[in-house]
Amino acid sequence: MSAGPEIERLIQLLAKLPGLGPRSARRAALHLVKRRDLVMAPLAAALQAAMDTITVCRVCGNLDSTNPCTVCSDPRRDPSTIVVVADVADLWALERAKAVNARYHVLGGTLSPLDGVGPDDLAIASLVTRAHDPAITEVILALDATVDGQTTAHYVTELLADAQVKVTGLAHGVPVGGELDYLDEGTLTQAIRSRTTMG
Amino acid sequence: MSAGPEIERLIQLLAKLPGLGPRSARRAALHLVKRRDLVMAPLAAALQAAMDTITVCRVCGNLDSTNPCTVCSDPRRDPSTIVVVADVADLWALERAKAVNARYHVLGGTLSPLDGVGPDDLAIASLVTRAHDPAITEVILALDATVDGQTTAHYVTELLADAQVKVTGLAHGVPVGGELDYLDEGTLTQAIRSRTTMG
Repeated sequence: MSAGPEIERLIQLLAKLPGLGPRSARRAALHLVKRRDLVMAPLAAALQAAMDTITVCRVCGNLDSTNPCTVCSDPRRDPSTIVVVADVADLWALERAKAVNARYHVLGGTLSPLDGVGPDDLAIASLVTRAHDPAITEVILALDATVDGQTTAHYVTELLADAQVKVTGLAHGVPVGGELDYLDEGTLTQAIRSRTTMG
Repeated sequence: MSAGPEIERLIQLLAKLPGLGPRSARRAALHLVKRRDLVMAPLAAALQAAMDTITVCRVCGNLDSTNPCTVCSDPRRDPSTIVVVADVADLWALERAKAVNARYHVLGGTLSPLDGVGPDDLAIASLVTRAHDPAITEVILALDATVDGQTTAHYVTELLADAQVKVTGLAHGVPVGGELDYLDEGTLTQAIRSRTTMG
C-alpha cells in the first residue's frame, strides 16, 4: 500500500463507474487529489447537491431535481404525445438529438423472461393510465430494436388497444452515415421494404 | 436541457476527469444518480474524506493521508536508497510493481525549457539536501526515457556530484513480453549494447 486508505477507497469507488477501469480510476483519483480546490471540491459539492435534490419524476420516471421533471413541466411540449423509453439514458439520447418535442414515459427496463423481468417490474400500469387521458392521441414506442425491446413494444401495444391512441414505433432502416457494405441483412431487408419515394 | 442544473453540473465535472469524455461522463452521472445509496453516497463521502485528510508528504512529495506518508514512515524500507520520480503516478506504478523497497522523492515534473519548467519549479533542492544525509548511499533516477526525462536525469546527476552517493538510472532494453518486431530502433540498439550473459 503506497497510499493511505482514503486514496485506496476513492480509487475503488471510481473504478465502479462505467467507463473507468482500475487503471483509469487511479489516474482519475490522482487527478482529483492533485487538484483539490479546482476539481475535487467542486465534484464533491456537485455530488452532494445531486444527492440532495435529484428524485424520480412522479409523472414519467425521469431523474431530475424538480418533480415533475423539467420535461414534464415544460409548457412548450406537445401535450398529445407520449414517447415510451426503456431507460433514462434513452430519454437523454432523444433529448440530445432533439428528435421529438413531446413528453416521455420511462419503463425502467424491458421485458426479459430470462432475467426474470416481468410486466410488474416495469412502469407499464402507469403508462396505460396516462394513455387513457383524452388529451393523449399518440404513444411512440422508442424501444431498442432487440428481441427484448420488440417483445416489450408488442406487449405494450396490446395493453393500449383500449386507449384512444395511435401506437407507433421507430422506423427501421439504414443509419444516417451508414455504409451498406457494413450493415446486417435484417437492416438491409427492412430498409428495402420501407423504401421511400425520392424528391 | 432534459435534466436539471445539478445533473448537468455533475456531468460537466465528471467529463473533466482523465479517461472520461462527455459521453462516458453522462453514463457515469446516470449510474450515480440511479444508485444513490449504493454508489453516489459512498463516493461523495470518500471524496470528502480525501479532501479532509490528504496532504503532500513533507519529506518526499507523495500524496497521502499521513504526513510523512505511508512509505516514508515504513520502517521496513531500505533507508540507504532514494528513488527519484517525476510524478506521484510514477511512485504508485513502482509500488504496484513492487519494483523496489526504498523511499522516494517526487520532483513534481521534469525539466522542460519549452514549457517553461526550470529547476526552481521542481523539488530538486530538497533532493540534494536529502542526498547529503550520510545514511543515503544510492539515488536511483526512475525517470521517463524521454528527452525531458533524460535531461532532468543528467541535471540531477550533476547536482549530486558533491554528495557521497551512487547515482543510478533505469536499465534500457526490451520490455518484458515485448516482441522485437514491434520495437523501435533506439530500444533495440540499447538492448544489444546492454546485453547480459545468459545462465
